[in-house]
Amino acid sequence: MADCQKCHGKDSPAPGPVPKDLIRLYSMRFCPFAQRTRLVLHAKGIKHEIVNMNTKQKPNWFMEKNPNGTVPVLETSSGQVIFESPITCDFLEEAYPAKKLYPSDPFEKAQQKMLLEEYSKVVPLFYKLSMTKGEDLSVPEKEFKDKLSKLNEVLVKNKTKYFGGNSVTMIDYLIWPWFERIEMMGLNHCLEATPELRKWIELMFENPSVKATMFSSEVHRVFFDSYMEGKPNFDYGL
Amino acid sequence: MADCQKCHGKDSPAPGPVPKDLIRLYSMRFCPFAQRTRLVLHAKGIKHEIVNMNTKQKPNWFMEKNPNGTVPVLETSSGQVIFESPITCDFLEEAYPAKKLYPSDPFEKAQQKMLLEEYSKVVPLFYKLSMTKGEDLSVPEKEFKDKLSKLNEVLVKNKTKYFGGNSVTMIDYLIWPWFERIEMMGLNHCLEATPELRKWIELMFENPSVKATMFSSEVHRVFFDSYMEGKPNFDYGL
Repeated sequence: MADCQKCHGKDSPAPGPVPKDLIRLYSMRFCPFAQRTRLVLHAKGIKHEIVNMNTKQKPNWFMEKNPNGTVPVLETSSGQVIFESPITCDFLEEAYPAKKLYPSDPFEKAQQKMLLEEYSKVVPLFYKLSMTKGEDLSVPEKEFKDKLSKLNEVLVKNKTKYFGGNSVTMIDYLIWPWFERIEMMGLNHCLEATPELRKWIELMFENPSVKATMFSSEVHRVFFDSYMEGKPNFDYGL
Repeated sequence: MADCQKCHGKDSPAPGPVPKDLIRLYSMRFCPFAQRTRLVLHAKGIKHEIVNMNTKQKPNWFMEKNPNGTVPVLETSSGQVIFESPITCDFLEEAYPAKKLYPSDPFEKAQQKMLLEEYSKVVPLFYKLSMTKGEDLSVPEKEFKDKLSKLNEVLVKNKTKYFGGNSVTMIDYLIWPWFERIEMMGLNHCLEATPELRKWIELMFENPSVKATMFSSEVHRVFFDSYMEGKPNFDYGL
């Protein structure tokens, strides 16, 4: 299950078929979308292997699996291919039902889906605020803070530690990866008015699946800088 | 279950609580997103009532239910509120499991979700092509035709009449509403190279849930024209 293989680039040969009783994840070690799937694989204790990709120079065989060229991509031993991060997570939830991450109540599950939909409008702001240079960012920063306040309100209103209750559920894993990077992105000050959200971040850092899939702010920073320079160091630290 | 109530506008009083053993749908009679939920309610035989909304001048009580102000919105007799069309459909699927619209196989379900994700990039093109005036549309029209060809390929590759097999399943209902309007939008010529998709449209027009929720091209046209003039006739035909 170790995520320690160097990345596959333009000329890397295709890996062979997925071994029986295993599921394969095509990932990129620093990709927050792929981390969603890695979190779910770990949290559910699913036996898997990881094939890391050079997402800048992709081999043709990878584009044949997912024409969008994005990670995460799951591949089963019977050759089924699944992509789009929330869809990979939902697939794992249903294909490996022993340990459930979604609540069983249909309305509670719908609430998680609605929160994810809302959160999908927050994700681009992380990038806008951390990647834009030489531009006034006061408007998107205000928007970002407002959206973090709304996340904070969910925790306050529900009176729960996590977004789906008092234990970690699917929605926490789906939201998490960008908050792991928020310090590295230089956006910690946007959390000043959201104490419950800060507490959630602290608690999530103690979660075993987060611990198993995370990188430190320093490591994220090295990758981020290399990415911004147009030469992403996909294998940093290996 | 009849969808024949005049719409609620800015000053309409809030409807009372949802009667027991019933689910309420806030809808707009000509909205394709809300039609998805109407199709699923009908196909699953779920006892429901419909509250039609003036989506241009919304009462405050509606904005409190869904701050985005969009339809469809579901409300249960215990006051639970669900919005975003695919989430409302998934909620109905899980809360009313007697008649299933999704396949039970997790991979087949994931395939439907991936196709829906892909289709979400087609939907804006219907509007772009039918609503834009005085602009060269050859580029988006080519993109639209390419995407329709991909949908056609799915049917060819699967050798099935519908997108999830040889009977109508969830994905057909989620895709359908824009194809009901394609003639009205003046886009039928974009179907010339997609015979299997044309056949699917013909078959879908025979589906009982489509029949129960649809309007003719002529009626859609009246609403569309009124909408384009800035005075949508939400109650046309009532």
